[in-house]
Amino acid sequence: MSILGIDLGGTTFKVSIVDEHGQLQNALERDTQQHDPPEELIKRLADAAREVAGDQKIDALGIGVPGPIRPDSGVCVFAPNLNGWTEFPVGDLLREQLGFPISVINDANAAALGEAHFGAGRDAHSMLMMTLGTGVGSGIVQQGKLLNGFSGRGAELGHISIKYDAPTGSAGNFGTLESECGRDAIINRALRMLADGHDSIIPELCDHEFSELTPEHISRAAEQNDTIAQQVWDETAAILAAGIVNTVYTVDVERVVIGGGVSAAGKVLFDPLRRAVLARTSHYKFDVNQIVPAKLGNDAGLVGAAVWVKENFR
Amino acid sequence: MSILGIDLGGTTFKVSIVDEHGQLQNALERDTQQHDPPEELIKRLADAAREVAGDQKIDALGIGVPGPIRPDSGVCVFAPNLNGWTEFPVGDLLREQLGFPISVINDANAAALGEAHFGAGRDAHSMLMMTLGTGVGSGIVQQGKLLNGFSGRGAELGHISIKYDAPTGSAGNFGTLESECGRDAIINRALRMLADGHDSIIPELCDHEFSELTPEHISRAAEQNDTIAQQVWDETAAILAAGIVNTVYTVDVERVVIGGGVSAAGKVLFDPLRRAVLARTSHYKFDVNQIVPAKLGNDAGLVGAAVWVKENFR
Repeated sequence: MSILGIDLGGTTFKVSIVDEHGQLQNALERDTQQHDPPEELIKRLADAAREVAGDQKIDALGIGVPGPIRPDSGVCVFAPNLNGWTEFPVGDLLREQLGFPISVINDANAAALGEAHFGAGRDAHSMLMMTLGTGVGSGIVQQGKLLNGFSGRGAELGHISIKYDAPTGSAGNFGTLESECGRDAIINRALRMLADGHDSIIPELCDHEFSELTPEHISRAAEQNDTIAQQVWDETAAILAAGIVNTVYTVDVERVVIGGGVSAAGKVLFDPLRRAVLARTSHYKFDVNQIVPAKLGNDAGLVGAAVWVKENFR
Repeated sequence: MSILGIDLGGTTFKVSIVDEHGQLQNALERDTQQHDPPEELIKRLADAAREVAGDQKIDALGIGVPGPIRPDSGVCVFAPNLNGWTEFPVGDLLREQLGFPISVINDANAAALGEAHFGAGRDAHSMLMMTLGTGVGSGIVQQGKLLNGFSGRGAELGHISIKYDAPTGSAGNFGTLESECGRDAIINRALRMLADGHDSIIPELCDHEFSELTPEHISRAAEQNDTIAQQVWDETAAILAAGIVNTVYTVDVERVVIGGGVSAAGKVLFDPLRRAVLARTSHYKFDVNQIVPAKLGNDAGLVGAAVWVKENFR
């Protein structure tokens, strides 16, 4: 059985054949050109799929999309980074172009499924994957199956509230994990502390170009024992820990896999994160060694989209 | 097939045959005598089960217990209201006494299963049940099946954090739903406002015996348009709404069923609760008419325990 996977992002998309071991064959990456009309993007996706397939007969294609998906129809509810993708029937349109079965999945859910089957979640009963980047994405996999809810709002942990009385948040909710732990929140946390005149090497690391400041600068500073930088990660970790523990108390996963660009911070994030989760689970023990980095990097979503269509295609 | 259900609480326990329509036969209620040695309580439960069974051959018994249960073994991790119930093998001990198959379930999970199969959750794809009382209990049912996690921590929503930086909480976590919306939290919210000298009929309704103040007094005052009482319910509802929306963003349930003694407040709780959930789900719409009162009252747990053993007994 030959399966194609696509991981569609706001900047680029990646297409590949994914074999039964989760390995990529003929992978290619193209620019998304996110401002193009949606029909043009569909055509470009279909062209790339045909190019990757070459002479091979493809049985099905799974595509991960940056937005919530209606479970039954494969309609994308909205994708904030793609022009015109509101109630967009991505599955039907791709099927028209390509002729073989298509399954659509949210990109963070796809990454979770990829890590669960071929990555850091492989031998776990159940896992939460959090993808830390511009936003906070997530997916939950229980005994190999994606937790897929009633209407496409499942495992959108970026939008849970961990500060119920905050004035702002994300996706219409208040005091959310994404508004407190997304890329901009981490950078702003550092800027607020620097604005207060605390001594730090962060300004030096970003050449005093604060509009260019990234979480990577802050993690490099923390590795050099910069107190301000460490405090930024400690606070970020404390909030993330609340979100992780909330998920443990809701669906009781065995493992937590952390991926995405921000997770590259490594030890300066993971150490305070494990400590904070431990502090919140003193009654019901959670084994904090089960909080682990993702393994598949940027391929998790592509691999997971292929797992998804394989499970849904009989 | 004849199935027995038991709902074991800190004050009383109830035993009954539960028929295939969720109806009770020969139900009886006894005092738990929570301070007795655990073996004596087991013996009293077994005696009551034999009495209810009479001449009928019983195929299996399901028991709902006020504490987390290890999914595989039926061991109760701990039951704060029962003497000596720590790592307590309630299933094995009852089986020794009675000789037929026993399944053990957390009481809030049992109530959710009861409401899902025979009560307010009957025709829903998936539901969250919250039981508002001394504590905040919960259970999640997806397509008729209990969401049962890896280690017995699943659907313990009373212990999720909605105020991550609070100094106190419940079950070792901080700023939890239970610490902010349990019975005592509601009463204390009222007392704090009254202590501030605000005009209210609450003191009159409890005969100025503030140690006797109950959520019922506060709901009666709110029904008579007492501003302070209404504010107590509005704040309680705002916090509960954060917890409900968090669950929607985690497992994406179709319906939310609210039961337990505190839910008797009715309209003064449900109206602000629906408004607050609506305000938090402006992007991903949640149909707030799906937030409904429980239907089975005190029998939910008993009926659900019987559903549970029937599903686990083949």
